[in-house]
Amino acid sequence: MKRIYINQVKDYIGKQVKITGFVQTIRDQKNIKFFLIRDISGIIQVVVTKDKEETFKNSSGLNLESVVEITGLAKEEKQAPEGFEIAGESISILSLSDPELPIPVIEKGQQEETDQSIRLDWRWIDLRKEKNTLVFKVWTLMEQAFREYWIKNNYIEIHSPKLIATASESGAEVFEVKYFERKAYLAQSPQFYKQMAMAAGFEKVFEVGPVFRAEPSFTSRHATEFTGYDTEISYIKSHYDVMKEEEKTIQYVLQKAKDKYGDEILKTYGREVIVPTLPFPKISMKETKEILSSMGVRVDKDGDISPEEEKKICEYIKKTQNHEFVFVTEYPVSVRAFYHMRDENDPKLTKSFDLLWNGIEITTGAQREHRYDILVSQAKEKGMGLEQLQFYLNFFKYGCPPHGGYGMGPNRMIMKLLGIENVRDAMFVYRGVNRLTP
Amino acid sequence: MKRIYINQVKDYIGKQVKITGFVQTIRDQKNIKFFLIRDISGIIQVVVTKDKEETFKNSSGLNLESVVEITGLAKEEKQAPEGFEIAGESISILSLSDPELPIPVIEKGQQEETDQSIRLDWRWIDLRKEKNTLVFKVWTLMEQAFREYWIKNNYIEIHSPKLIATASESGAEVFEVKYFERKAYLAQSPQFYKQMAMAAGFEKVFEVGPVFRAEPSFTSRHATEFTGYDTEISYIKSHYDVMKEEEKTIQYVLQKAKDKYGDEILKTYGREVIVPTLPFPKISMKETKEILSSMGVRVDKDGDISPEEEKKICEYIKKTQNHEFVFVTEYPVSVRAFYHMRDENDPKLTKSFDLLWNGIEITTGAQREHRYDILVSQAKEKGMGLEQLQFYLNFFKYGCPPHGGYGMGPNRMIMKLLGIENVRDAMFVYRGVNRLTP
Repeated sequence: MKRIYINQVKDYIGKQVKITGFVQTIRDQKNIKFFLIRDISGIIQVVVTKDKEETFKNSSGLNLESVVEITGLAKEEKQAPEGFEIAGESISILSLSDPELPIPVIEKGQQEETDQSIRLDWRWIDLRKEKNTLVFKVWTLMEQAFREYWIKNNYIEIHSPKLIATASESGAEVFEVKYFERKAYLAQSPQFYKQMAMAAGFEKVFEVGPVFRAEPSFTSRHATEFTGYDTEISYIKSHYDVMKEEEKTIQYVLQKAKDKYGDEILKTYGREVIVPTLPFPKISMKETKEILSSMGVRVDKDGDISPEEEKKICEYIKKTQNHEFVFVTEYPVSVRAFYHMRDENDPKLTKSFDLLWNGIEITTGAQREHRYDILVSQAKEKGMGLEQLQFYLNFFKYGCPPHGGYGMGPNRMIMKLLGIENVRDAMFVYRGVNRLTP
Repeated sequence: MKRIYINQVKDYIGKQVKITGFVQTIRDQKNIKFFLIRDISGIIQVVVTKDKEETFKNSSGLNLESVVEITGLAKEEKQAPEGFEIAGESISILSLSDPELPIPVIEKGQQEETDQSIRLDWRWIDLRKEKNTLVFKVWTLMEQAFREYWIKNNYIEIHSPKLIATASESGAEVFEVKYFERKAYLAQSPQFYKQMAMAAGFEKVFEVGPVFRAEPSFTSRHATEFTGYDTEISYIKSHYDVMKEEEKTIQYVLQKAKDKYGDEILKTYGREVIVPTLPFPKISMKETKEILSSMGVRVDKDGDISPEEEKKICEYIKKTQNHEFVFVTEYPVSVRAFYHMRDENDPKLTKSFDLLWNGIEITTGAQREHRYDILVSQAKEKGMGLEQLQFYLNFFKYGCPPHGGYGMGPNRMIMKLLGIENVRDAMFVYRGVNRLTP
């Protein structure tokens, strides 16, 4: 007999079925045992009665979270949690769990009861919780939706090297690698390589891959390693073309997410997926600071936008324009990387943007400077080591289309999509300063 | 006017069009100039006549590989390379190339004339060649096809950490990373983490990501960093279930590749894409050695299958069964990782396989040992450090479905699909012992 998914049992009422899964609960009465069995598709009650002697005996040895294969009769049963149950006829134990679970799969209250750090120690058990599995079902859908948009629009996929010769592009801290007789570094973004693809004439590219940040940061939204989505497109007129492309992409993705998982997200996380209207609101960095000032928020006029300011400006946009997204544009040169193109009308500003979603930055983007001489002078001005950068600067010597792009953090997308507070719950396995396991 | 792709010009005959691209050739006659312009979609001839004074003058400053935007009249022209041309009316230079190109984009002969190592130094110029761009168009399609298969079949996508605490699973050499006050290592495969996903109840997962190998290898098929495709599935009966899944996946992918790029691959690489029939041939390691012996090939009876043996057995299968693929199964314990499950009938053998395609190994797979005690004893037997492995061994303590999977190298898939001899030409940016740039 072929094993079926638990959520298919309802289509087999009156028939013999075979299911497999984890034993989530055991209720043992004298002549009858009730089990809740969980697979990737759902949960079902299995009943074993004493007259099935062998099976009844077998099932006595089960511990919570053991893995079993069960055959039996599929039945409607109003008392059962999902309205169906299986009258168990045979149970085989595929994997017996240790009787002492280090963390529970079913928390007793509504609130998470186990400390996050302990949950992370036993991440694979933590991931068995329905709400945690849902994160990765949604992620799978989300990532595929991004890719569908890109591929429909003629993007080429690249996988750029993570081992690089020089300590990367932005001055942020990088990890050092022992590379045979020399040193290498871990790329903190595929920035240089997606630009290389523009110089190669690929025109539009995307990359999905890990990025590494050696920052000793302990906040709820930072990790030392996480997944990045990166795109770059050629023949743009300005960063506004990049924003136009990004907002269309996000609309496409959120529509797909709503269609497939909207109900489940609402049920499990209490969050409604809102498909954003186009165009997204756009305000300049200067305006942002002015609005915040006028609202009485204490702002650093010349600094970057702080997490607090991100939150406040999103609240403002939500209130005045009823939109969850806002592009903040025209960041000053002082807070942007040397390769961001400068504004033709105000050389103190860059043709750049961040995208904020419900209070958090999910994207940084810009038009890039593709003119060799100007790029070199901007690098000098920022005090970059030209020798180390020469391999990158060369990309712009032999013809390179004007181009721009953005980098996005899917972890933060997932946090906002589901309403998860801590990035550690929005990635498969978290990496931080003090965490390298499991 | 909106820019159109060059391969769309034929649909605009008699109309004004705007194109952008690289200047691939310049033929300068007294009163007329001919340019071949190349974008991601194709190549077209542009003619500029002296009567367009300003444009004629402008175009005199052009160097090969400069990037231009051109408007003009789309015309049929039998003499032109593709049967169409544009009568250029305005040319603007978006990016002027240095007049001295370090490597040519158009090689003079049929054979590649520039040394590979020099081509790799200037990889982004090398990538402008039509045949090299095609590699990444095909890769994009191939990767999306794999993913489509997986997603249609309920796989969940994971992104596992590349920074790990211990020197990984198989004893192969790993890169060491300075991780704040301690050491970390770069994962040489997502093996442990896809198994963790099985223990988490994800049932079927896939991962696409970089893998790192600190092997001082200089062959034409090794790199220190490359992309891996990895899958793992639960509730299998044996490794034969994994092979069944893999052959279906590959058939799906090659059908897609043939449909979309079959003609172009044949034209550019002279290789026909053959969609393989199911099931793939399967022979045991023992049979393989016997067949090779009987063919007069000198084999190491107890060793792994050598590259030479891979080639010979594929030739044999092609000749006797007319199939490009062959699964070699039941590898001895001595040549497989400690976590491969052993054969119930012969404990010297593992429930494992390699998949060979036209003479090269593209996959290693197996059923994994999911029973804690047996796994521990197998690890001991192989001399693994149990303490370092404990975080991994724990995955099997609290219930874990029987499972298996495989890892595959898309670089090698691309090599075989297009008939590329050297892996360095089948990846975006190559990394080797002596190469960390660009």
